[in-house]
Amino acid sequence: MERVYNFSPGPAVLPISVLEEAQRDLLSLPGLGVSVLEVGHRTKWFEGVLETTKANLKKLLNLPDNYQIVFMQGGSRLQFSTIPMNLLAPGASADYIVTGTWGQTAAEEARREAEIRIAYDGKATNYDRLPTAAELKLSPNAKYLYYTSNETIQGVQFQSEPQGSQAPLICDASSDFLSRPLDMPRYGMLYACAQKNAGPAGVTVAILRDDLLADCSKRVPTMLSYPEYVKNNSLANTPPVFAIYIVMLVTRWLLDDVGGLAKMHEHNARKAKWLYDVIDGSGGFYRGHAQPACRSLMNVTFRLPNDDVEKAFLKGAEERKLHYLKGHRSVGGIRASIYNAMPDAGVEALASYMAEFRKQN
Amino acid sequence: MERVYNFSPGPAVLPISVLEEAQRDLLSLPGLGVSVLEVGHRTKWFEGVLETTKANLKKLLNLPDNYQIVFMQGGSRLQFSTIPMNLLAPGASADYIVTGTWGQTAAEEARREAEIRIAYDGKATNYDRLPTAAELKLSPNAKYLYYTSNETIQGVQFQSEPQGSQAPLICDASSDFLSRPLDMPRYGMLYACAQKNAGPAGVTVAILRDDLLADCSKRVPTMLSYPEYVKNNSLANTPPVFAIYIVMLVTRWLLDDVGGLAKMHEHNARKAKWLYDVIDGSGGFYRGHAQPACRSLMNVTFRLPNDDVEKAFLKGAEERKLHYLKGHRSVGGIRASIYNAMPDAGVEALASYMAEFRKQN
Repeated sequence: MERVYNFSPGPAVLPISVLEEAQRDLLSLPGLGVSVLEVGHRTKWFEGVLETTKANLKKLLNLPDNYQIVFMQGGSRLQFSTIPMNLLAPGASADYIVTGTWGQTAAEEARREAEIRIAYDGKATNYDRLPTAAELKLSPNAKYLYYTSNETIQGVQFQSEPQGSQAPLICDASSDFLSRPLDMPRYGMLYACAQKNAGPAGVTVAILRDDLLADCSKRVPTMLSYPEYVKNNSLANTPPVFAIYIVMLVTRWLLDDVGGLAKMHEHNARKAKWLYDVIDGSGGFYRGHAQPACRSLMNVTFRLPNDDVEKAFLKGAEERKLHYLKGHRSVGGIRASIYNAMPDAGVEALASYMAEFRKQN
Repeated sequence: MERVYNFSPGPAVLPISVLEEAQRDLLSLPGLGVSVLEVGHRTKWFEGVLETTKANLKKLLNLPDNYQIVFMQGGSRLQFSTIPMNLLAPGASADYIVTGTWGQTAAEEARREAEIRIAYDGKATNYDRLPTAAELKLSPNAKYLYYTSNETIQGVQFQSEPQGSQAPLICDASSDFLSRPLDMPRYGMLYACAQKNAGPAGVTVAILRDDLLADCSKRVPTMLSYPEYVKNNSLANTPPVFAIYIVMLVTRWLLDDVGGLAKMHEHNARKAKWLYDVIDGSGGFYRGHAQPACRSLMNVTFRLPNDDVEKAFLKGAEERKLHYLKGHRSVGGIRASIYNAMPDAGVEALASYMAEFRKQN
């Protein structure tokens, strides 16, 4: 069947060349004679996949040597618990910046495990913006400062790291990971589930600095312990082999086909601008959810004049092979997720449709 | 590349028809126009995958209505911690039967979370057998009795459920799940990582009885809480979509192509007999690790006269496309994993080679 343009917030569109390579070798990997779904995790082949994926990530992120990369399971939501279990001993606490649904959920889960403080909560304005430096209530003794770089549901994205804290930054980068260069030395930990920019659902990439690793509790279960993952090179048990293999192919695509994260960021900024320009030029017909300075390059969220018009918009979009544009129920409206692998042609088609739809309504 | 016979203990061989269907639709699912690696977990399509997979499992296992099926991540090893976190409140304890490496590891992880007692430990005979009923030291107040139905490394398999305990049985069936019919009403919980008989690495199937679910602690992280998985139909966060899709295809293969678990068990018993007959008829050239009454139908473990002969055996095997036969370092020798999807032809080729190799050495 012909492929449609997939604006899903995640699992999300992947590079076509990655899918084609996975498809070609799915019955039998070259030189091995078994499927990637059947290959042992302790084979030389998979060792190579792990090392290549880590090397690609290190190169893409310009990652210093005092950072370790591990591959975990359970999605970002299990990280919400795993982080305080590892890093907040009894008596310790951390600061959380809440700029949307995922930050809110992360804080809720963390509170079940340890003491945390809310440095900012954007609920009063329905999570349409980021805090100013003055609004951040930072604790002098926080073990870390946690934030969500891109809120997938609200479409609000940090343009740079929050300032003013002495504590290590921990960033949930699930929905903008690998979409732009990052100043990695500023982070204590950065993690992302794969299913937006890095691969399929089923693997979470976590990048930790050595000083945070040294600070982890020894009392957490082996399969939730960051130091155990580092010690065992993510092989304490069987990792999600196929998902990591796809991350390898995606990171290779970013390096070889795209040309790195600065280039990727350029593409992403250009794509997002096409949509935001239509919104801003629509005379209020399209109303963006996020305040302009906080807009996400990954998830473009907007409302139409009313529910009926939104329904008509979605129906017409599907007729043009523009799929999965319905916004999350908590925000409503439309959400166009335009991750790394969304081709220009998909965004152009959506922008044209938006302009045309506005004229007709 | 031509496929080889894959005797890997897991990730392991899958039915070729499953791989072919996954390959055919990998770029674009029929009727959807997106890859299974890109499809949203809240689509009607994936809802259908979840419901079909559960219905297939229910039918295969003849599962009563008071059992719930959930799909988790983290492998069996995360279950080792998750089970006591959910079921052992402070002051409560459970009994563990240890018949090999995985039972031992499960007990070690459980002991980090709660009080447990060892009902049997087969270490003294290097885990070559199962306990007799008289050997089991059962506690009258145990919350559950835990055991590993098939020890993948040692090749020791329970032929039926352990007797004599009033406590609910919890079974790690990772390496013999779906290989034979089970008397499910005897189990409080049964779980298995997929990567032996049910699918690729990256998803764990857990089946729990309602009374155990009602007994779970409310203090565990959402992503480790069995009741939360049931309440959210395994969709509290993004599940491993692709891995569950493959489990759907494998369970359909078991129902439609194989004809159910009784048939599957017949095939498995026949395949294993070919190898054990060669071992038993070899005049001591091949020495089985497990005592005959405790032999696994899934993992056939044996030694040859010495290390050099073992090396020569493995070399000759690979020349015949018989791969991944090296035993685990803790047992040594040879391990032939012959799960559901290993075709007769693979086992016949191995049995012939074993007979031939013996004559020449």
